[in-house]
Amino acid sequence: MTTLANYPLHQTVQTRWHDNDIYGHVNNVVYYSYFDSVVNRYLIEEGGLDIHNGEVVGFVVESQCKYLKPLAYPEPVTAGLRVGKLGNSSVRYELGLFNAAGELCAEGYFIHVFVNKASNTPTPIPEGIRSKLTLLVV
Amino acid sequence: MTTLANYPLHQTVQTRWHDNDIYGHVNNVVYYSYFDSVVNRYLIEEGGLDIHNGEVVGFVVESQCKYLKPLAYPEPVTAGLRVGKLGNSSVRYELGLFNAAGELCAEGYFIHVFVNKASNTPTPIPEGIRSKLTLLVV
Amino acid sequence: MTTLANYPLHQTVQTRWHDNDIYGHVNNVVYYSYFDSVVNRYLIEEGGLDIHNGEVVGFVVESQCKYLKPLAYPEPVTAGLRVGKLGNSSVRYELGLFNAAGELCAEGYFIHVFVNKASNTPTPIPEGIRSKLTLLVV
Amino acid sequence: MTTLANYPLHQTVQTRWHDNDIYGHVNNVVYYSYFDSVVNRYLIEEGGLDIHNGEVVGFVVESQCKYLKPLAYPEPVTAGLRVGKLGNSSVRYELGLFNAAGELCAEGYFIHVFVNKASNTPTPIPEGIRSKLTLLVV
Repeated sequence: MTTLANYPLHQTVQTRWHDNDIYGHVNNVVYYSYFDSVVNRYLIEEGGLDIHNGEVVGFVVESQCKYLKPLAYPEPVTAGLRVGKLGNSSVRYELGLFNAAGELCAEGYFIHVFVNKASNTPTPIPEGIRSKLTLLVV
Repeated sequence: MTTLANYPLHQTVQTRWHDNDIYGHVNNVVYYSYFDSVVNRYLIEEGGLDIHNGEVVGFVVESQCKYLKPLAYPEPVTAGLRVGKLGNSSVRYELGLFNAAGELCAEGYFIHVFVNKASNTPTPIPEGIRSKLTLLVV
Repeated sequence: MTTLANYPLHQTVQTRWHDNDIYGHVNNVVYYSYFDSVVNRYLIEEGGLDIHNGEVVGFVVESQCKYLKPLAYPEPVTAGLRVGKLGNSSVRYELGLFNAAGELCAEGYFIHVFVNKASNTPTPIPEGIRSKLTLLVV
Repeated sequence: MTTLANYPLHQTVQTRWHDNDIYGHVNNVVYYSYFDSVVNRYLIEEGGLDIHNGEVVGFVVESQCKYLKPLAYPEPVTAGLRVGKLGNSSVRYELGLFNAAGELCAEGYFIHVFVNKASNTPTPIPEGIRSKLTLLVV
């Protein structure tokens, strides 16, 4: 069984009123915004990614999510993050979302390719980011 | 000068990656989702509002926001909430959003009219909610 | 009574599944994203605003909406746009949202201040944009 | 090469200002909201799904997207939809998103399990919906 212990990094995700859709649960689309926010926060705060003026950006080339149990605002969510594969210019992030009872409610992944903005071509992951991603490889 | 001290209730708002728009700041629309989430969290957790099966719902009839300084993900935001006017079936919430330096970045309000779902007509604010809103009247 | 005829420009707005919130109507926040999209589309397609590389950006300093009748996905919405005030570096857009029956469901406004990105100070509205906004002044 | 001709149903998707993120392209999360809206529009308008009072709801249990070329507001997008697998109570929707030049920019899928709201258990796909989904099976 997958638990938070399967993920080296944990972050709390605050839910919002309009995360819920007409069926009363967090809309399936919104899970990906949790993924996006958890990962970029780590890249920015730990890895030094400069999203405003940096020369390198991470583009998402693939994402997936499996939904196991519903979540709903206003309950808090805990996200677990690990790195499934760390390549030269790409990385696969794997995430789990857990409810307050510690149950796995969704799991997914997305793949970033790091790209040089000026040339619009793949570029090696910057060292500051790579060193922090290495810590999350499982 | 307006500070957090002008608001009896404070809540931390977590920003998200896609709160930022192409200009690199929190999009003007997103501020209203902060307002919505702060108020409903209070109504649900303190006032006992049941958004799934309750007979009474709060409909927004008017909202406004003035934007003073930009906010940007991933910085955290602190919201202040007070009640500007508490009527029989309607309430005016007034909110301020503050950055980490304690500066007021936006202020706004919205008005809820409480409505009976079955009859679709205004109804007195339920007592459990009213008593909690009274605490925020300034 | 306000009708579409009160607005010189009309645009169709396509609603989305998750525009609806748990109460089954378009969430109050989403109306502002309609406003934003209608106006910027006009500025880009008619006025030549370059949101990717332009030196001038429009920052929203104030917005408001009054909600008269609910809207709900999947119904289409028609937006009406007029310019309430055209200043040297700022403009007040006034919008109405109409349902398929032609009824006014919401009306609001927002104010753009045009700013030079490099200096971060207000700048006169570019001529290409101003000439197109002039057409919408009522 | 995948073209729109690979999908029996086509729908235009209107992009919005804040679909673009800080990097100037439609955010990866937003693609899923296009998927959601295209499919539910078909279920509601063609299949008679009642999202407000119906006894049956479609829950998303898995979704995926591959991003091939960026999209950006205000360009229009054309979505193609087909049914990859039609089970007793579940269906796999496959979607492609095309730009104005007819190029495939993203492709993905999601799986709906139809559930009886009262019992919260899987239920056969209602006949009105099934007959319309059958038309999209490839």
